[in-house]
Amino acid sequence: MTAVSARGRVEEAFRRIKEVDRPEVWILARDEADVLADADRVDTRIAGGDELPLAGLVFAVKDNVDVAGLPTTAACPGFAYTPARTATAAARLVDAGAVLLGKTNLDQFATGLVGTRSPYGAVRNAPRPDRISGGSSSGSAVAVALGIADLAIGTDTAGSGRVPAALNGIVGIKATRGLVPTTGVVPAARPYDCVTVFAASLALATHAMAVMSGPDAADPLSRAWPSDVRLAAPPEPRVAVPDPGALAPLSDDARAAFSAAVDRLVGAGARVKVVDVAPLLAVATLLYDGALVAERFAAVGDFLATEPAGADPTVAAIIRAAAGLPAHGLAADQRRVDEARATAAALLRDCDALLLPTTVGHPTLAEVAADPVGTNSRMGTYTNFVNLLDMAAVAVPAGTADGSPFGVSVITRAFEDQIGIDLAAVLAAETVERTFPGLGVDLVVFGAHRRGGPLAHQLTDAGARFRGIVRTAPDYRMLDLRTPPPKPGIVAAAPGTGRAIEGERWTLSPAALGVFLTALPAPMTLGKITLDTGEHVTAFHCDVPPGSDVIDVTEHGSWPRYLAARNT
Amino acid sequence: MTAVSARGRVEEAFRRIKEVDRPEVWILARDEADVLADADRVDTRIAGGDELPLAGLVFAVKDNVDVAGLPTTAACPGFAYTPARTATAAARLVDAGAVLLGKTNLDQFATGLVGTRSPYGAVRNAPRPDRISGGSSSGSAVAVALGIADLAIGTDTAGSGRVPAALNGIVGIKATRGLVPTTGVVPAARPYDCVTVFAASLALATHAMAVMSGPDAADPLSRAWPSDVRLAAPPEPRVAVPDPGALAPLSDDARAAFSAAVDRLVGAGARVKVVDVAPLLAVATLLYDGALVAERFAAVGDFLATEPAGADPTVAAIIRAAAGLPAHGLAADQRRVDEARATAAALLRDCDALLLPTTVGHPTLAEVAADPVGTNSRMGTYTNFVNLLDMAAVAVPAGTADGSPFGVSVITRAFEDQIGIDLAAVLAAETVERTFPGLGVDLVVFGAHRRGGPLAHQLTDAGARFRGIVRTAPDYRMLDLRTPPPKPGIVAAAPGTGRAIEGERWTLSPAALGVFLTALPAPMTLGKITLDTGEHVTAFHCDVPPGSDVIDVTEHGSWPRYLAARNT
Repeated sequence: MTAVSARGRVEEAFRRIKEVDRPEVWILARDEADVLADADRVDTRIAGGDELPLAGLVFAVKDNVDVAGLPTTAACPGFAYTPARTATAAARLVDAGAVLLGKTNLDQFATGLVGTRSPYGAVRNAPRPDRISGGSSSGSAVAVALGIADLAIGTDTAGSGRVPAALNGIVGIKATRGLVPTTGVVPAARPYDCVTVFAASLALATHAMAVMSGPDAADPLSRAWPSDVRLAAPPEPRVAVPDPGALAPLSDDARAAFSAAVDRLVGAGARVKVVDVAPLLAVATLLYDGALVAERFAAVGDFLATEPAGADPTVAAIIRAAAGLPAHGLAADQRRVDEARATAAALLRDCDALLLPTTVGHPTLAEVAADPVGTNSRMGTYTNFVNLLDMAAVAVPAGTADGSPFGVSVITRAFEDQIGIDLAAVLAAETVERTFPGLGVDLVVFGAHRRGGPLAHQLTDAGARFRGIVRTAPDYRMLDLRTPPPKPGIVAAAPGTGRAIEGERWTLSPAALGVFLTALPAPMTLGKITLDTGEHVTAFHCDVPPGSDVIDVTEHGSWPRYLAARNT
Repeated sequence: MTAVSARGRVEEAFRRIKEVDRPEVWILARDEADVLADADRVDTRIAGGDELPLAGLVFAVKDNVDVAGLPTTAACPGFAYTPARTATAAARLVDAGAVLLGKTNLDQFATGLVGTRSPYGAVRNAPRPDRISGGSSSGSAVAVALGIADLAIGTDTAGSGRVPAALNGIVGIKATRGLVPTTGVVPAARPYDCVTVFAASLALATHAMAVMSGPDAADPLSRAWPSDVRLAAPPEPRVAVPDPGALAPLSDDARAAFSAAVDRLVGAGARVKVVDVAPLLAVATLLYDGALVAERFAAVGDFLATEPAGADPTVAAIIRAAAGLPAHGLAADQRRVDEARATAAALLRDCDALLLPTTVGHPTLAEVAADPVGTNSRMGTYTNFVNLLDMAAVAVPAGTADGSPFGVSVITRAFEDQIGIDLAAVLAAETVERTFPGLGVDLVVFGAHRRGGPLAHQLTDAGARFRGIVRTAPDYRMLDLRTPPPKPGIVAAAPGTGRAIEGERWTLSPAALGVFLTALPAPMTLGKITLDTGEHVTAFHCDVPPGSDVIDVTEHGSWPRYLAARNT
């Protein structure tokens, strides 16, 4: 990932910690010597030939996520306990070579979107210190935005991993619930909690999510990618955008920035559909005004009943108010959530993604102090519904508005995270090579399925992802099968009579490959081909009977070149 | 399905209704003239050439499931309403040609496993009228067991679709939650409710489940089969059975019957593993002794607060007691359910299914009247956990015990319903041709992947299902590729030089086919082949370069015949 040594990166991080002087970012900054010792171990392993994909990177962890041997406070000093095991998500980053700098500040018990609800201090915004960082993953976002950490772990139940990304001008990914295990995380509203990541670039954030994800037997809510997952946004994605009324909470400047983001997607081929998002935004009321707050009481209500030192008055008031809610009210609100999920599915049925602003406005610290609940509530306008409705979101910077960073979120159905990442890459003007889903099988195509070819849609409709141009070993022959549409047939050549044939490599889900194969007509077949790299990859062959009326066009070495030559 | 006309079948059903004289089975028996009119419409459509897979069959519907124009009472007269739409599951049976006889009695609000909790009368057991039918789907089960209906719809939250199947000696299938939509069903405990079916044979029950299942946009909890679903039990399924302690509630006679069922599976190739099922059985306490009862209050609590006529005192007391439960208690119990699901997954990780008795004992009507709650609770010992832990179950007869029908349940992970059906088929000594999952793609194999071949496990491990022997059109040639293990290569023949080659047809999930293809080494390929029926099916081909050291063995027409000839 980087040529910097882990030690060098850690030294730089500590210089930067001193330089920025933002002590409120940390609840526990690790001792530099301890961190350097970790870094040296990574450098030694790299020198010994180990593959550590995140070696040379440093990260921070929100202090509601366990790290073995360090206290977990969830920003409440009286809540502190010292876990014996590191949370699965954080352990996977360490296993990949990232070095931990410390535990970051948050809105207490991850209850808030402002970053001010903490006895460890209100976290100031990275570029605009008189304003809020956003929360609840405040310290993690600011540590990344200030260039201290390459990566930071956050959590997100209602926007906590996205709002602070937007306000600090960085990337935040809130994946489909369950992809990243929550083992070792203090619950906020347990059924909806997600572990998230912040990074300056979408590529690094995606890589970290890939590292952190994967089933965990210790997390009953962890989920695996379905075997028909789409691995790429289609070439002309259909993107839902809100009607103007839904953007009323934004300033003119923010609306212009949002509009520019829409234009950018359209410029990249997206087809936009205006949808009435009011039914989605209305779900927010269930989260804080209904019985779902009982989830927060179930997590820490008994603790708060002990009148602990350091309880944030706003947070404590919200959670204590849930003590008397009736169970049948929670059952009824859960039914409403399920119904809203069905409504959202119908609303977005023919769309690949929904683009929304990530948050509303950028209050000063003083404004939040004056109206802690009202301000907080507005911040979640466009984020609250996502976890409840089992959707995924990628928050990316999209310029500035009113002098602050402005961000948008690409929201997708569960397990369509990669679609969101691909669209976010357009907005971030990034190329993201590494994909998030960890499954996918390769297929090499030679003719009509190549990009621009008449059958390419069979791959892109199935969520296949283009990987690059490849060449076979020089052991094949290419036939013009003289079919409509024109298609090549690749066959193994007798020794010494073949040549290298150019093709395209695609990756698709196992189920998509099975369906693709089932739809293939004779004489096309699929089986292993050897590439010039020596790799064996599934590729097109054909089984034409001897004496068929085909033309050997091997000498062209590439179907497009043959077609071009034939047409001249 | 049957050669009987719909009219003939209806006339027979009404003769049988009179003959058995069990008025308590029905809450609403439809007028014979109306039912005959429906039957005539079916017969007319069949005569006109329509394909109606359930034509000639009659069915009954539990009266907590809507049928347009008929009152739904859920066995509480004061609750009655007349729906405008038929429940999705029932509508699908009607669309497939089944004719509705009427609405059946149940334990009120589907709260009970006894069949006595109804102002419409306690439903008497089919073979032993002094004893209980079991419930809550009492009337539906007895209507089938007495030969009145071919099929009956039940519901099941804690065993209501299985306990009465066992006590009346018939089949009950409780599929994975969400496969059959619950649209138009009065909720009992909404997140766990399933629509079930009863039939005298496993084959018919499976067919009906296949008809009733499929996504429904109106049901937020409906789910589709995953694209990697297993379509067959493996040849040597691993079956978990309870340790002797867990069978202590059974009589000696029942234990012997259970043991015989285990022996039957072992005789068919199953490998048995004794597991400690106590963690599963303990989940029952969450269902009735914890906050989950609030789900029932959310469904009908407000109605019961009106002190309606005809409320069953036992049912009303159970549900009313949930009024004061706190929401955080429900959140905590839902967490316990999730944790128990993870425990169960770990416990059964290396097993394909779990075999348990379906229920405990067979009380008389008088015994239940004397102790309505205690008796009921025992009935659910082996069924209560299944829906909570997101598992599927097939209840089948397994002989008799103490003079009553005895039943066992094959319990599987979610979406492994077909594994359960295949094992139940062994117990029922039935052949079930039609499978439950509605997806699956075909693959024809010729050599090492055939049953008994050295690579057959690649298919059976992937959940592929053997469909039969097939022959290609006479247009192919067969080569001995001289590989280890020995494998044939099938290639298209020049006109007039081919012959029909014998193969095996298998069905597997799209994802399994994709994975299978990806694992194939050169020169094997997959693509369409034409069968002697004219069908085009995905099958093995190969791409061997000209001049390869292979032997043409086409004349044998079958790889096993060639191997046999070579070895003599």
